[in-house]
Amino acid sequence: MTITPPALSVFEALESEVRSYCRSWPAVFDRAQGSRMYDEDGHTYLDFFAGAGALNYGHNNPVLKRALIDYIERDGVTHGLDMGTTAKRAFLEAFQDVVLRPRDLPYKVMFPGPTGTNAVEAALKLARKVKGREAIVSFTNAFHGMSLGSLAVTGNAFKRAGAGIPLVHGTPMPFDHYLDDRVPDFLWFERLLADQGSGLNTPAAVIVETVQGEGGINVARPEWLRGLAALCERHDMLLIVDDIQMGCGRTGAFFSFEEAGITPDIVTLSKSIGGYGLPMSLTLFRPELDVWEPGEHNGTFRGNNPSFVTAAAALDAYWTDGQMEKQTFARGQQAEEALRAICAEHPELGAHHRGRGLVWGLEFADRSRASEVARRAFELGLLVETSGPEGEVLKLLPALTISPEELDEGLRILARAVRETA
Amino acid sequence: MTITPPALSVFEALESEVRSYCRSWPAVFDRAQGSRMYDEDGHTYLDFFAGAGALNYGHNNPVLKRALIDYIERDGVTHGLDMGTTAKRAFLEAFQDVVLRPRDLPYKVMFPGPTGTNAVEAALKLARKVKGREAIVSFTNAFHGMSLGSLAVTGNAFKRAGAGIPLVHGTPMPFDHYLDDRVPDFLWFERLLADQGSGLNTPAAVIVETVQGEGGINVARPEWLRGLAALCERHDMLLIVDDIQMGCGRTGAFFSFEEAGITPDIVTLSKSIGGYGLPMSLTLFRPELDVWEPGEHNGTFRGNNPSFVTAAAALDAYWTDGQMEKQTFARGQQAEEALRAICAEHPELGAHHRGRGLVWGLEFADRSRASEVARRAFELGLLVETSGPEGEVLKLLPALTISPEELDEGLRILARAVRETA
Amino acid sequence: MTITPPALSVFEALESEVRSYCRSWPAVFDRAQGSRMYDEDGHTYLDFFAGAGALNYGHNNPVLKRALIDYIERDGVTHGLDMGTTAKRAFLEAFQDVVLRPRDLPYKVMFPGPTGTNAVEAALKLARKVKGREAIVSFTNAFHGMSLGSLAVTGNAFKRAGAGIPLVHGTPMPFDHYLDDRVPDFLWFERLLADQGSGLNTPAAVIVETVQGEGGINVARPEWLRGLAALCERHDMLLIVDDIQMGCGRTGAFFSFEEAGITPDIVTLSKSIGGYGLPMSLTLFRPELDVWEPGEHNGTFRGNNPSFVTAAAALDAYWTDGQMEKQTFARGQQAEEALRAICAEHPELGAHHRGRGLVWGLEFADRSRASEVARRAFELGLLVETSGPEGEVLKLLPALTISPEELDEGLRILARAVRETA
Amino acid sequence: MTITPPALSVFEALESEVRSYCRSWPAVFDRAQGSRMYDEDGHTYLDFFAGAGALNYGHNNPVLKRALIDYIERDGVTHGLDMGTTAKRAFLEAFQDVVLRPRDLPYKVMFPGPTGTNAVEAALKLARKVKGREAIVSFTNAFHGMSLGSLAVTGNAFKRAGAGIPLVHGTPMPFDHYLDDRVPDFLWFERLLADQGSGLNTPAAVIVETVQGEGGINVARPEWLRGLAALCERHDMLLIVDDIQMGCGRTGAFFSFEEAGITPDIVTLSKSIGGYGLPMSLTLFRPELDVWEPGEHNGTFRGNNPSFVTAAAALDAYWTDGQMEKQTFARGQQAEEALRAICAEHPELGAHHRGRGLVWGLEFADRSRASEVARRAFELGLLVETSGPEGEVLKLLPALTISPEELDEGLRILARAVRETA
Repeated sequence: MTITPPALSVFEALESEVRSYCRSWPAVFDRAQGSRMYDEDGHTYLDFFAGAGALNYGHNNPVLKRALIDYIERDGVTHGLDMGTTAKRAFLEAFQDVVLRPRDLPYKVMFPGPTGTNAVEAALKLARKVKGREAIVSFTNAFHGMSLGSLAVTGNAFKRAGAGIPLVHGTPMPFDHYLDDRVPDFLWFERLLADQGSGLNTPAAVIVETVQGEGGINVARPEWLRGLAALCERHDMLLIVDDIQMGCGRTGAFFSFEEAGITPDIVTLSKSIGGYGLPMSLTLFRPELDVWEPGEHNGTFRGNNPSFVTAAAALDAYWTDGQMEKQTFARGQQAEEALRAICAEHPELGAHHRGRGLVWGLEFADRSRASEVARRAFELGLLVETSGPEGEVLKLLPALTISPEELDEGLRILARAVRETA
Repeated sequence: MTITPPALSVFEALESEVRSYCRSWPAVFDRAQGSRMYDEDGHTYLDFFAGAGALNYGHNNPVLKRALIDYIERDGVTHGLDMGTTAKRAFLEAFQDVVLRPRDLPYKVMFPGPTGTNAVEAALKLARKVKGREAIVSFTNAFHGMSLGSLAVTGNAFKRAGAGIPLVHGTPMPFDHYLDDRVPDFLWFERLLADQGSGLNTPAAVIVETVQGEGGINVARPEWLRGLAALCERHDMLLIVDDIQMGCGRTGAFFSFEEAGITPDIVTLSKSIGGYGLPMSLTLFRPELDVWEPGEHNGTFRGNNPSFVTAAAALDAYWTDGQMEKQTFARGQQAEEALRAICAEHPELGAHHRGRGLVWGLEFADRSRASEVARRAFELGLLVETSGPEGEVLKLLPALTISPEELDEGLRILARAVRETA
Repeated sequence: MTITPPALSVFEALESEVRSYCRSWPAVFDRAQGSRMYDEDGHTYLDFFAGAGALNYGHNNPVLKRALIDYIERDGVTHGLDMGTTAKRAFLEAFQDVVLRPRDLPYKVMFPGPTGTNAVEAALKLARKVKGREAIVSFTNAFHGMSLGSLAVTGNAFKRAGAGIPLVHGTPMPFDHYLDDRVPDFLWFERLLADQGSGLNTPAAVIVETVQGEGGINVARPEWLRGLAALCERHDMLLIVDDIQMGCGRTGAFFSFEEAGITPDIVTLSKSIGGYGLPMSLTLFRPELDVWEPGEHNGTFRGNNPSFVTAAAALDAYWTDGQMEKQTFARGQQAEEALRAICAEHPELGAHHRGRGLVWGLEFADRSRASEVARRAFELGLLVETSGPEGEVLKLLPALTISPEELDEGLRILARAVRETA
Repeated sequence: MTITPPALSVFEALESEVRSYCRSWPAVFDRAQGSRMYDEDGHTYLDFFAGAGALNYGHNNPVLKRALIDYIERDGVTHGLDMGTTAKRAFLEAFQDVVLRPRDLPYKVMFPGPTGTNAVEAALKLARKVKGREAIVSFTNAFHGMSLGSLAVTGNAFKRAGAGIPLVHGTPMPFDHYLDDRVPDFLWFERLLADQGSGLNTPAAVIVETVQGEGGINVARPEWLRGLAALCERHDMLLIVDDIQMGCGRTGAFFSFEEAGITPDIVTLSKSIGGYGLPMSLTLFRPELDVWEPGEHNGTFRGNNPSFVTAAAALDAYWTDGQMEKQTFARGQQAEEALRAICAEHPELGAHHRGRGLVWGLEFADRSRASEVARRAFELGLLVETSGPEGEVLKLLPALTISPEELDEGLRILARAVRETA
């Protein structure tokens, strides 16, 4: 496939220089279905990016689409702030019946605004309010969002610099494997907490991703997560799992922390929770933490009812039995085998792969290689992005609903792209 | 009309205590059309709230609805992060042709994430980055959002306390009329700026609403806004107009600052920009301020394509000629007359009204009266909210598309509610 | 008198560029007595600066000198941290008997470290600890010190910039006369406090100088100070009077706030409290505020015993009757008359004077004139400094022990210097 | 010796609860000479505390006393702010000739105010100004002072809590041996610096003590200090050595960092620099860092001339040859042997000792033991304090001028006190 540079004029002329993905993929997309996107020039792309995790059920999933159109057709409440609506009730009931009860999770549900960073801001505000402390511990290469509260616990120096003010109240600790396993887990963190002279402001909470998606597909071991949960309990800190990218089945189970058998105090969900790619997010927390006053945190789009409709439909369609989880593991295995083969085929690249469920990373010794591979893949009709502080990790994030054939096709394009940039 | 307490169980059991509007209006809404909402028990409500300004074109506006359903039916890209899409292009072109060019506004357009607070956070980050200073001046009773950056420039003490950390880098200045016109405009502010010993950290920017919606329907005079713009220019501060609630025609013109004849350096838009009540927001700025690096500010739902579709449709339907603006002034006059009559009818209440376009406030000497009136109005089938630091102002925010008859009906209910709580 | 440029080489070669007074007065001083200083080249200078208020009893006051030498000769404890010493006891007893009891002041005494900024830091820490709030209100053109806590409540932009971090938690309010009496006292401040939507973080305390020495000899009226004290009480804020420069009799009474008849919650003293110009400072506070834990604030030189000796001797020598206060008023009158005459003599200079007790300022329409006058005065053998944000105010601060003849001599030199720079 | 409780009434009645050392040692001291202190009841105490390091040359050292009295007698300038004085010149020349030149140290000298915390505040301000960054890295169990800037880089949680505001802009790193040598030096620190995604705000500077005096007599190895200096150079951070307690010969050489062969960018000195226990401090820095504007940092007691006199005399008397350093090593060896014997005598106490030069610590397995030993030692006529976050380390800090016999006497009392609390 050859790509003719599309007419981007209005984007270039009018849109801010801050635009990003449209630069990696110089096409104007028009339609999308399942794992395929179509640009206005008739090109087809296989999508291994899935809206950075917002499209676990694929583009314009027909089951959800039906529910959404029905709702709009019948003039269901589209906007109503956080009024009670039948759509919200249906979602809450589905979430309770399909997600919380079967997992014995006691959470209250907050609608903090429809984006991930809204959910993180609400989580941090609540943790600070409950504990009466300001400090939050985050981890190296964490990504939690772009508003000031979330940005302060995000690791990326380039993003942080955008704040224009010194970001304070957050202290980074080493994520799992960060120091190449040369240091016992939490040795440093716990010493700081136990020592009255350490200089660490006692944290209200710890915020963690189980797999760091933006940070480079860094996978925490279950035992590391259990160690962290125990540490939080020993030292009276709340544990916040930011499951915005890794939740909703990305790693297999609905929540990414289920594998480790832990129950965080606070959980953030966004991206795929709405199912159809519409803005929606949740902040979940233990009921005893629900010390909010009515309206203490608010926002215009908290109650994005069309999202509630597709969210409830997605839960009903995919999470009432264990099929989705099983399928994700199977697809994950398929991806892992292909990545292992790529690494083996090119020992000179010093490549290695890592991942869980259907999120995989491929890192090369040469830190600019991942970008080159992604660029070549795009030319070959595959959408795949990079992550990590220097974009040094190729990031595979296909829809969970991808077929084995599509997955295979994408992996073969990827192998070819690696080969052709070698 | 009598109200049977609806079955709120799942809301009460599962949703966080932070929920708010659903407490004022104990109904479960199911459908909505134009200026009417319908609950599941068959009750009809006239809506003078309009999604806190997110529904300037009414609920489920049929023109926009058609465009939205068409887009969804044909599998237009729903989610694609900030990729180039045909829907985004159509919106950008419409925004340029219908909004920016006719007003000679040179702005670049940024999609900062789909909520108002995302737009404000981006505006503040950009202003700080451009000026290399941290301080922002805001105004008494300002409201700009709930994430940490926006909250720091928000006045409400109750909301601020939710932050859990001291909110810094913001200094409040008196909004127009704040000191009962006993002090010349900007006397204090400019003295602080001119005096090297004043102790004010030199501000990067000033952020202002032309009419403070949450703060109590406080209306700045055009000459005050012009004075502020001149002050900003004299003292090398950027002027940010937060037009999230008052933009998109709420005060008559598309932008609320047009009346004053000023051109802010940065403008935030959200709420009604998407037209249909779907999450969307914009940060606009002079091209010379576009110093963002690609991806320096990002977010999953920046490119909410369904919103782009309804946003473009709304611009085409309502803003290609001057009809909407004219109609808003006419409706506003109608509202003002009714409010004047209410005040005149009850001299003992010490009530007075204020507003512009189709945003009006009614304040009573007894600061708890507004809430009582709103409660009674709800019982009588009218949705109307309060604003101000103590909820002491009744806030009228009907859809701009409301018919004169509906408006009259609502104003009569209001008059009755005032009477029946007297 | 002609001045030969002295050999400043080691100062210039070795001392940091931050050095300041030695630049205004390019001499190398060797001896000093009373109101006279002598440089190594045999020149004599009359001192209208008095160590910026640290030498209210003159240089090397013989009464204090005797006590100091005796103490050193007999090997009294020089350094002992904050151990109990006979010298400290003698000072505490004198301070209680001569200062606190006759004025019915209930204060506890804290030795916070021997400099003014130590005293202010301790005052701010205590106020925040007591009230559990972070915000402090200070005033335009305030000066409280150079360490980070004190600097954050200091007005001067040049000094603030030296911090290298954004100074937060402080908000400036207008000092008396700041807005040329066009605004009622505390109208703005109290409105901010009363309004839950104002955006002012509720202050723990207000810190104020009764006369701003560094800020330009700005004199607060007694009724303004009383208004401030009443405001603090109404709004549950602690009132801190920083009496470092204006205390110890500079304005007449021992404390500068006595004239207003108020009792601040916290008072800081330094400069002349040690009597002999040796480092010493005190933080005084109402006993119910003494919530410090033992050692919660410490420092190596809290117990500067030689200072305790001269401090006690000064209290005994000057404050057991009302003579000192009477004499200060008389000298002040003498100064005021001379300044009035200077202003009258040169109507073209647009000069005006202001002051209280023995602190006086002379301001010229031309803001660089004060520096020129000071420079010429130095050539004529008078040490006098400038103050104000641009050094636009000539600042007269002679020793309280100056004789009428010396004062007259200095004032005549001053008049001549004004004349000769006109 | 038996101790009669002295009459502390005025201390208890009038002095703030914050007083500390006077609680450990309930005596009223009157005179002091060399290593002995005398209370008003005729008791004699051997001093192993030396003003927390401010009395390296002993109490009221006769050589310095002579110079001091001569200066006072002849009316040398006592107070003159930072004017040029003959006393200041003499000190600067001595410091240059005796200290800087022989060590080939290129430093400029700043008088930042006469206390240690003034010196640290100035160092931090300068580092931030030079680098244009806010963040400072400090170490676990660091102690740098009580004003807000210094406190933010101090480790002790109890002291930090006294700030009343969240202390930010500082991040602690592990001091040498902190993690029991289970982690390679600087592995964590350098990884954070090298990784653009680490979340560490790039530091302007690192501040370190070579031996942590308040933190528990933690001794950094020379190779660790060299590693730190190299790290700072690699990552463009300034290295600040806080030599306030360990400088002026405490560890042998004049500066404690000489042993490691490093040249810090900035050095703070206080405590014993004045020689006689009078307040004085210095901030030294490489000439290219001297970007201060005149007067950008100021303070009333910067030029404490009596201290300059005793400081110069001390340099002349003790530092023109290598005797002092040699003697300190000899005394240190004597102390170490005694401590080793104490540890060996009581294996059941799990005691171990550590130190350098004439600063030694003795830690017991039972963390309350050190306080008990210090209390018993006081009863036996020895002044010795504890340090460490829980006061768990007995801290030996005799004057450097102590005689071998006095040192032996004190060590024997200590051994007895250990025995009698066992």
